[in-house]
Amino acid sequence: MRSYLDWLKEENMSLFTDFYELTMCASYFDNNKFEPATFDLFIRRLPENRSYFLFAGLEQVLLYLKTVKFTEEHLAYLKKQGFDQQFLDYLRDFRFTGDVWAAPEGTVAFPCEPLIRVTAPIIEAQLVETFLLNTVNLQTMIATKASRVVNAAKGKAVIEFGLRREHGVDAGMKVARSSYIAGCHGTSNVLAGFQYGIPVFGTMAHSFVMSYENEIDAFRAFAKTFPNKSTLLIDTYDDLAGAEKAATVAKELEKAGCKLGGVRLDSGDLAEISKKVRKLLDDKGLQYVKIFASGDLDEFKIAELLKNGAKIDAFGVGTKLGTSADKPYVDIIYKLCETMGERGKFSPIMKLSEGKVTLPGRKQVYRFKDENGNYSKDMIALVDEKVKGEPLLTKVMEKGKITYDLPSLDEIRAAAAENLSKLPAQYKKLTNSQPYTVELSQDLENLIKNLKKKLRKTSQA
Amino acid sequence: MRSYLDWLKEENMSLFTDFYELTMCASYFDNNKFEPATFDLFIRRLPENRSYFLFAGLEQVLLYLKTVKFTEEHLAYLKKQGFDQQFLDYLRDFRFTGDVWAAPEGTVAFPCEPLIRVTAPIIEAQLVETFLLNTVNLQTMIATKASRVVNAAKGKAVIEFGLRREHGVDAGMKVARSSYIAGCHGTSNVLAGFQYGIPVFGTMAHSFVMSYENEIDAFRAFAKTFPNKSTLLIDTYDDLAGAEKAATVAKELEKAGCKLGGVRLDSGDLAEISKKVRKLLDDKGLQYVKIFASGDLDEFKIAELLKNGAKIDAFGVGTKLGTSADKPYVDIIYKLCETMGERGKFSPIMKLSEGKVTLPGRKQVYRFKDENGNYSKDMIALVDEKVKGEPLLTKVMEKGKITYDLPSLDEIRAAAAENLSKLPAQYKKLTNSQPYTVELSQDLENLIKNLKKKLRKTSQA
Repeated sequence: MRSYLDWLKEENMSLFTDFYELTMCASYFDNNKFEPATFDLFIRRLPENRSYFLFAGLEQVLLYLKTVKFTEEHLAYLKKQGFDQQFLDYLRDFRFTGDVWAAPEGTVAFPCEPLIRVTAPIIEAQLVETFLLNTVNLQTMIATKASRVVNAAKGKAVIEFGLRREHGVDAGMKVARSSYIAGCHGTSNVLAGFQYGIPVFGTMAHSFVMSYENEIDAFRAFAKTFPNKSTLLIDTYDDLAGAEKAATVAKELEKAGCKLGGVRLDSGDLAEISKKVRKLLDDKGLQYVKIFASGDLDEFKIAELLKNGAKIDAFGVGTKLGTSADKPYVDIIYKLCETMGERGKFSPIMKLSEGKVTLPGRKQVYRFKDENGNYSKDMIALVDEKVKGEPLLTKVMEKGKITYDLPSLDEIRAAAAENLSKLPAQYKKLTNSQPYTVELSQDLENLIKNLKKKLRKTSQA
Repeated sequence: MRSYLDWLKEENMSLFTDFYELTMCASYFDNNKFEPATFDLFIRRLPENRSYFLFAGLEQVLLYLKTVKFTEEHLAYLKKQGFDQQFLDYLRDFRFTGDVWAAPEGTVAFPCEPLIRVTAPIIEAQLVETFLLNTVNLQTMIATKASRVVNAAKGKAVIEFGLRREHGVDAGMKVARSSYIAGCHGTSNVLAGFQYGIPVFGTMAHSFVMSYENEIDAFRAFAKTFPNKSTLLIDTYDDLAGAEKAATVAKELEKAGCKLGGVRLDSGDLAEISKKVRKLLDDKGLQYVKIFASGDLDEFKIAELLKNGAKIDAFGVGTKLGTSADKPYVDIIYKLCETMGERGKFSPIMKLSEGKVTLPGRKQVYRFKDENGNYSKDMIALVDEKVKGEPLLTKVMEKGKITYDLPSLDEIRAAAAENLSKLPAQYKKLTNSQPYTVELSQDLENLIKNLKKKLRKTSQA
């Protein structure tokens, strides 16, 4: 019997691609088109309420590019799909041999800025498109969303709790990773703890409480097992009655020289209930018992709770973070921006489809800072221009070899925090943020004007 | 260097769980709580605009339950997380030994109806919660969404095209699988073709067209490689100019005894453009050339296109299907409904949290049909009641062994089509569908009333 995961192998990722990548490559091959080309991976526009992106996913992209290849089993399958033998023989030896420039993970980015730039023989550059988009879409979307949630929590801890509703196994892992990059304190996903070293958190569910005849028996049983780190879920039947019982257990623990960790609220009006629970605990001298809240939270609800004076010490944020529920994708694309022409020289190109215009040529992104070191504007320019700002893209792969010292997850997380701190507050509001300025250099503007003229002529020819 | 997928192994799925499952289980263990309990997996409510669910994901659930176990590496990690040695020794021998009843994949389902019912020693039943929810959430959400898209397309082919923006590798596979179950003709995901035998489709991207100096050169190059199955993307510069060139290539192919397959539109007003392109092609005797449309489609846009007389033969539906963008999760939960009491007898239980009340007891779902064999209403009842309708849940696992003949993907797809055809049209509208009737049996109503009384008393005790 087939396993439910037996396709999830690194060696199978060459087929983790849209069919059209292969038909295009077959035709490039058939037409002897092996010349290099450059593709930009970027996000076309900001989703509603977002005002920046937090870039994530590069590590997985580089490891994929380093390892992608076809097995005999894959080639046999592709043969049945009608591809001809010469192309299949080419695929047998396929390796990615291109150059890649990219922004580091944890970079704050804006629409139309290339995040990854791939220069490779056009067949290679084309074939890897789908995996790159899939990986960067998910992680950048989640890192961006998580950074908003963390920002809304104003220094209170945020734990990523969405595993049960994230989109499958890989999403569960990448959501934990990118949420951690964005500043979450940890995750409920134990496998992400095991694999990535992310701190894991969690206590008890309603079912645990319900499995005991009396709520306080459940609390006592749990406290017996975890006498110094229990967080008791108090809303199964009635919040305040639950809080009373938690307080009783806390006092019992004190007698044994132990301390209750906290209580968790998971339903109802969390602001009001948390205030009552805080008072109840404080009145009994249990100031040290933390209040943890969960239940359908996102950045908007957290901001409202804090505005309403909620007495909450940490937030568990699940589904709405783990699926980026208000916008479960970013408008990420991978577009050809130059090809090598007949005389071995690269020529910039662009497309004109309605609402889908692209930026031509090989480009770099420059960031400008104000006198305090905060971000003031960006400029997208052609690589051979002289621009004063700080360049965002660095070389990460040369001729298919990683030339970049992959940072650890904690290093990426620290870089993200540092970068977000340099983005002024007016660009980080939950709604109606001021748009950040991204300019095109004069040379790029001129190139676009000239190409548009030329293309309009060509398409009418 | 770590691979980007090396955690995606079947043997690691025991850690693919929320940390609280493990803390609860540790406490059950510590308190000698091994008695069996029953959990229901169900969806609490319908998302906006949805009027039914199409259940999918059971196969992956059963294969997981059959194989879940802990390795020494996992146990070493858990030891570092503070679990005690006796519990770790218990986990070393952990296997799932319970009974499972479930609806077959492709079943049309409604809120609060148990889709999977697990009866097992409470530690086992608890530990598997997260994987079950994660798997069924994704696949049921996507199958439901895809069935709406297929329904809107009124018999025209729908291809699932969302791989690049689906949430990671596993989502890419499970979206292809559940979209196919729901009636999509195929997918762009080649790995899903390789692994599941789902038909794969795709032609060319804008980058292919742009990589040639002239659009028509790109068309000719592609048609050379695929002389009888090319679909040419005609909107890179200008739809109608592109259609003219495609027609020229079609005529050239005719001279060689071949036929152009189709043209693809990917931007602009698809209804208007498709009519103009159809006329242009027909005027040249190219009635056989199909028009394929893509670009930000979902069930609402497809319905509108067809209402506006679009001349489109097939739809490629990407991001909005592959992420279920208007509602990227279902409110799926896994709730304890009975525990074994002191005298070795099961007792029904429920919770009372605000807005989160559950149905107690071990239950079956019965479906009633009208005189034409169409679905008329469902009833949720206790298993020992006599009810006349057709029971939806069947035994699929006994003592940890699969006792169910897992249907093939094509069998599941056929069952889904059959089931959806029996759901009357008033329950399948894209918006404002009539709510389908799901009743609770009298015995279940009585049980709830009595338990509520008892619980309110207990919680005040």
